[in-house]
Amino acid sequence: MKKLVLAYSGGLDTSYCVKYLSENGYEVHAVSVNTGGFSEDELAAMEEKAHKLGAASVVSIDAQQTYYEKVIKYLLFGNVLKNNTYPLSVSAERIVQATELIKYAKNIGAQYIAHGSTGAGNDQVRFDTIFQVMAPEIEVITPIRDHQLSRQEEVAYLEGKGIKMEWTKAKYSINKGLWGTSVGGDETLTSHLALPEEAYPNQLIKNDPEKISIGFEGGEPVSLNGKTMDPVQLIKSLEKMASGYAIGRDIHVGDTIIGIKGRVGFEAAAPLLLIKAHHLLEKHVLSKWQQHHKEYLSSQYGMLLHEGQYLDPFMRNAESFLEDTQNNVNGTVYVTLHPYRFTLDGITSENDLMHPEFGSYGEMNSGWSAAEAKGFIKINAQAQKIQHNVNPVTI
Amino acid sequence: MKKLVLAYSGGLDTSYCVKYLSENGYEVHAVSVNTGGFSEDELAAMEEKAHKLGAASVVSIDAQQTYYEKVIKYLLFGNVLKNNTYPLSVSAERIVQATELIKYAKNIGAQYIAHGSTGAGNDQVRFDTIFQVMAPEIEVITPIRDHQLSRQEEVAYLEGKGIKMEWTKAKYSINKGLWGTSVGGDETLTSHLALPEEAYPNQLIKNDPEKISIGFEGGEPVSLNGKTMDPVQLIKSLEKMASGYAIGRDIHVGDTIIGIKGRVGFEAAAPLLLIKAHHLLEKHVLSKWQQHHKEYLSSQYGMLLHEGQYLDPFMRNAESFLEDTQNNVNGTVYVTLHPYRFTLDGITSENDLMHPEFGSYGEMNSGWSAAEAKGFIKINAQAQKIQHNVNPVTI
Amino acid sequence: MKKLVLAYSGGLDTSYCVKYLSENGYEVHAVSVNTGGFSEDELAAMEEKAHKLGAASVVSIDAQQTYYEKVIKYLLFGNVLKNNTYPLSVSAERIVQATELIKYAKNIGAQYIAHGSTGAGNDQVRFDTIFQVMAPEIEVITPIRDHQLSRQEEVAYLEGKGIKMEWTKAKYSINKGLWGTSVGGDETLTSHLALPEEAYPNQLIKNDPEKISIGFEGGEPVSLNGKTMDPVQLIKSLEKMASGYAIGRDIHVGDTIIGIKGRVGFEAAAPLLLIKAHHLLEKHVLSKWQQHHKEYLSSQYGMLLHEGQYLDPFMRNAESFLEDTQNNVNGTVYVTLHPYRFTLDGITSENDLMHPEFGSYGEMNSGWSAAEAKGFIKINAQAQKIQHNVNPVTI
Amino acid sequence: MKKLVLAYSGGLDTSYCVKYLSENGYEVHAVSVNTGGFSEDELAAMEEKAHKLGAASVVSIDAQQTYYEKVIKYLLFGNVLKNNTYPLSVSAERIVQATELIKYAKNIGAQYIAHGSTGAGNDQVRFDTIFQVMAPEIEVITPIRDHQLSRQEEVAYLEGKGIKMEWTKAKYSINKGLWGTSVGGDETLTSHLALPEEAYPNQLIKNDPEKISIGFEGGEPVSLNGKTMDPVQLIKSLEKMASGYAIGRDIHVGDTIIGIKGRVGFEAAAPLLLIKAHHLLEKHVLSKWQQHHKEYLSSQYGMLLHEGQYLDPFMRNAESFLEDTQNNVNGTVYVTLHPYRFTLDGITSENDLMHPEFGSYGEMNSGWSAAEAKGFIKINAQAQKIQHNVNPVTI
Repeated sequence: MKKLVLAYSGGLDTSYCVKYLSENGYEVHAVSVNTGGFSEDELAAMEEKAHKLGAASVVSIDAQQTYYEKVIKYLLFGNVLKNNTYPLSVSAERIVQATELIKYAKNIGAQYIAHGSTGAGNDQVRFDTIFQVMAPEIEVITPIRDHQLSRQEEVAYLEGKGIKMEWTKAKYSINKGLWGTSVGGDETLTSHLALPEEAYPNQLIKNDPEKISIGFEGGEPVSLNGKTMDPVQLIKSLEKMASGYAIGRDIHVGDTIIGIKGRVGFEAAAPLLLIKAHHLLEKHVLSKWQQHHKEYLSSQYGMLLHEGQYLDPFMRNAESFLEDTQNNVNGTVYVTLHPYRFTLDGITSENDLMHPEFGSYGEMNSGWSAAEAKGFIKINAQAQKIQHNVNPVTI
Repeated sequence: MKKLVLAYSGGLDTSYCVKYLSENGYEVHAVSVNTGGFSEDELAAMEEKAHKLGAASVVSIDAQQTYYEKVIKYLLFGNVLKNNTYPLSVSAERIVQATELIKYAKNIGAQYIAHGSTGAGNDQVRFDTIFQVMAPEIEVITPIRDHQLSRQEEVAYLEGKGIKMEWTKAKYSINKGLWGTSVGGDETLTSHLALPEEAYPNQLIKNDPEKISIGFEGGEPVSLNGKTMDPVQLIKSLEKMASGYAIGRDIHVGDTIIGIKGRVGFEAAAPLLLIKAHHLLEKHVLSKWQQHHKEYLSSQYGMLLHEGQYLDPFMRNAESFLEDTQNNVNGTVYVTLHPYRFTLDGITSENDLMHPEFGSYGEMNSGWSAAEAKGFIKINAQAQKIQHNVNPVTI
Repeated sequence: MKKLVLAYSGGLDTSYCVKYLSENGYEVHAVSVNTGGFSEDELAAMEEKAHKLGAASVVSIDAQQTYYEKVIKYLLFGNVLKNNTYPLSVSAERIVQATELIKYAKNIGAQYIAHGSTGAGNDQVRFDTIFQVMAPEIEVITPIRDHQLSRQEEVAYLEGKGIKMEWTKAKYSINKGLWGTSVGGDETLTSHLALPEEAYPNQLIKNDPEKISIGFEGGEPVSLNGKTMDPVQLIKSLEKMASGYAIGRDIHVGDTIIGIKGRVGFEAAAPLLLIKAHHLLEKHVLSKWQQHHKEYLSSQYGMLLHEGQYLDPFMRNAESFLEDTQNNVNGTVYVTLHPYRFTLDGITSENDLMHPEFGSYGEMNSGWSAAEAKGFIKINAQAQKIQHNVNPVTI
Repeated sequence: MKKLVLAYSGGLDTSYCVKYLSENGYEVHAVSVNTGGFSEDELAAMEEKAHKLGAASVVSIDAQQTYYEKVIKYLLFGNVLKNNTYPLSVSAERIVQATELIKYAKNIGAQYIAHGSTGAGNDQVRFDTIFQVMAPEIEVITPIRDHQLSRQEEVAYLEGKGIKMEWTKAKYSINKGLWGTSVGGDETLTSHLALPEEAYPNQLIKNDPEKISIGFEGGEPVSLNGKTMDPVQLIKSLEKMASGYAIGRDIHVGDTIIGIKGRVGFEAAAPLLLIKAHHLLEKHVLSKWQQHHKEYLSSQYGMLLHEGQYLDPFMRNAESFLEDTQNNVNGTVYVTLHPYRFTLDGITSENDLMHPEFGSYGEMNSGWSAAEAKGFIKINAQAQKIQHNVNPVTI
């Protein structure tokens, strides 16, 4: 029998895959990789459903810790927001899901691996690439991409096989994970319509501002309101605290790997709070050049991650660089949560480079004399003076 | 008599300069350059005061249009926010003030030019550099930097000379201009305190959301709610509309030219709205590589502008580049104003690259087949496959 | 009849295409685009051959001027050498050949366009991309890629059709053009073997050093040894002068668009001389920041040109930037030609920023005092001092 | 007595400093830091001379190993050539000399540290910066910069103090070190004159080509012609081998820290050979993105090193990045030495990514089909197609 691992999510597409592949000579091992999107109940329901559909085995891998260690950590170190907006919620998840799936497939000796992505998006590129690179000997099977069926046709196929389940198509397609939730709907297929309030999974239920503090060590979030916790737990606690304020919503417009523009809503309270808090702390503890070049490398890191180039060895080099910049990123960031927004109030840090003893910006100071300042400016302006002497320019 | 042009703002420091320099053999021509910070009334009061202090002449130059054309336009093209936060409100103004002042000094044949900056900040670098580069033959005089007097000492000097005026020190020092208002106070001298509500010049007076639209042509803002206006007028109208929502407040933490870290509050409703709206439109009409490299060059442009290197010929090259990227940045951006925040709702543009006819992200499409997608992915992943074949990596 | 334009070079592959396509229902218009690789005699022979093979028409487009204006000029402005070695001789030619071919096809109303590239290299990507982008309505036909025939099979096909011609396979495959000649052979398929002397089209025939001078205006080469000439003529004259010294040989190792590494020898006397001379002149007349950021953008420009992304609108923006940097790139560069190498001896330029009057490097000078230098250094080192005070580092 | 450490080189300037400072109340500890420029004999002569001039102690620190470990290694990893020409021979040495001197001064409890740089060059910035950052409590004394004496005046002063020594001014000023030798003279003060043959310390004495091989491990040079040696020894052996060919000469034109342009000749056979050989090996073993981003970061690293910003924490981050990129830079590079030049013949490496089994550039291959190539190109060109459909451009 042909042993196959299927990336399984419990939705119609991958349910169709379980049945279709089981019917066509494959021993289907349905594997879901939990990157923060599934509750215990959901996982139990998914398992039951897969068995009914004919799966030989059903497994759920909890990859939240791996997700943080392999990807989220570096996105935070790099303050990565694609197009200055989007925390790469979905792109980042797919990497970890793909690597966990292919490792599982190799472990159980599967000759095939399948996913339910269409031929129209980024996910197929991320899955296929990681599968092909890490296990060229395992064949990739993609029924949804190959068959191009409509939802109706898929349901009809299942019913034809005696499978009667409820396949309600939600008005908005949601992808939930530890680093944010994406939201697609009719509006995101246009350029001009905003998503309505109800499209977002979390609704505004808190109105009174709340002051919180986030502690960082070596660039990693290690405490919330003074309470130490591991980063995954912290992200979840922070998300819980902030989601009632409907914080972290926006719409991302970006370039897909396949050359078309895409638009997607998202809700990512904890990621946005952590990135912005981390960034503020960095402004206090890193040198100008560290910040400047971090920005360059982080942007490249985000771009290649988004585009499925996670296994390029450059990515490991960039991670080394980012890690090395975080030694002094220690301290506490004070934040206030408000309905739909938050303010960064300030920081305390033993590594803070803004110290009254070194002189205060714009105030009188004893660090240097007027004559020294003039000497600095004179020589600092030297190159421009020569330029304008040789090539006079009228401004 | 020694003819001198003084950069005059009506504050205590430059008032001291008028008197002190007049008393010490200079014919003082007090010149204020209006970059959007002075009302008619303020200008009249400033003029009267300067005459009383002994100025030989008092002039106000309206540089708002120049400011927009020479600087703001490019900051908008580049979506420039220093450290991803600050629209460079003050840095940008100083450039235009300095160039207007030195041009005026040359026109009236002054041998001296004076400003009231201290030796502790960025402004001295910007003023001195532009003065020295554009007119090396004119000597720069800086009484405040050289004398290092306290406010009390300055007031005492003026009173000793028979000048009795009201010199109330505001609790917060404000610098207002077309591209934003900076706010300094006791809190900004710390790392951990936020500015209180009352520190900001504009207070929240509007609570009901308001939908507006901003039209762009060639990257420049040309209409507001469908009404055509010139960019300077548009910035002012938009500021008026949005400031009642207390939009555009934040605190900037950054590296000064003189090597210390500085922290300053600001309020910049119109700049933030325009930059974010412009950026969203660009995401729809520019290619990935245009956006990517614009980000690099714009960041450099902002850094050098901030650091007083405006006259470096690279800056003109960068402006050419930015200008050239804006040909297709045409369309309308829809924005909703809320208390303390705004949302970008969407855009319409004839140059929109997100078109249903080219395929929709994640949906079935007729643009290419599953086989073509697989061919793309296979070859796109080729380099990584070779890498991992030669140098196997465990993830 | 199906009207087809064929990119024709006179070699076996494209000759096979003429015959094969003519036999299979196409009206074949054989078009060669001369980017500096064909002599009059070669063009005449090619024409005769194509007629014999059944071409409906044979045309040669002289694109040397276009090649210079659209591509070479910018490669020179940017001092572009891929991987710091290769002047992109072949990549650059393909762009111009593709654009000229597709324009011709549109002009004569062809429904098809064909080229003879294999499926294993970069050229197919460059041709297909430009054809598909500029004329999506014209179908691309690629017999060599599709049939994957050996040389023997192609010759056999032609002989079967009664075509008897001499198809000697040269030991080294040569691609000659205005911006350099590439050389492939058995050695370039290995990583460790150098090309032998005889692989290069030009052999060492001059031994006595020769001093020459190249004049630039606005970054463009305008005179050789004081004699004004247009750039295309200048490149050819310089090539003639220098090729007898066997100058400009090297081996390029680089990443192909399709993800494999490639290795190719080349000989490019004039391009290397012009790029290095131009670069030296720039060191004298451009500011540090102009040079720094030119390097970044030029490297991107070269990479995307190489990868067939010439029609991305970013490329036009980069050209605007590069053009704008060349205003002051005026002057004369002195070069000495030696066997296998050249030396850059110096420059003269009215825009030279290295002027004794501004102080000489390392010598005593009157531009500034010791105290001013100390003031400069003190403040210039300020940020590092604060860093090491807060975070002491042992070096 | 005021304890002072003097950076001592045995030349007239620092000899003047020994005498002058000894006469003016300082206990002068003359310290030379050997970065490869001094032979045993020279060091002995320097020591004797310093004692005669009144030094309290004379010490020579052998810093060659440190120089390699702290600086040269990273310049090689980054293939750093300033302005694509100069291996930063002098800039790199100064860093190590300054750090060794200040460490020595701290160890012996000196209150003062002195150097003999003028106020017109880069070296003062490098020395002062490192001294001030690493030991703000030690005062920097600079007699040459402060007194601005001519050579005649210095000699006269020494003779007045009874010191009669031979102070021949060489026609060319030479600075010799492990990573290259700089050469200044009358010609380098002009823009148009080349240095004559005799200006260079090494003369052409070998004419027959010689084939050599250099082995690299982890990016570091570890063997020469198959013989294992430590990198410092290897650099010296290679220099000995190659200098008889007069290899590695050129003239660097660059921007000084103080804003003027400088021009200096150099001779650096081993550095040039190692950098170019290392770079060629990298082209075979690194991914496109590794090379691309290494180039960016290395250029920044070189610029900041040159400008005396070695202690900025960004520099350590960049070193981490560079180190991390070198894991697979293993193999042997084959080079042929010729009079005045060398050729890179090829490489062998277990990590070579150019493998016939993955397909050969431009040849027929079995890695992918024509259809797959077409699918790749179609989707790879997608973004450009949409661009030109929406915004048609005439080329």
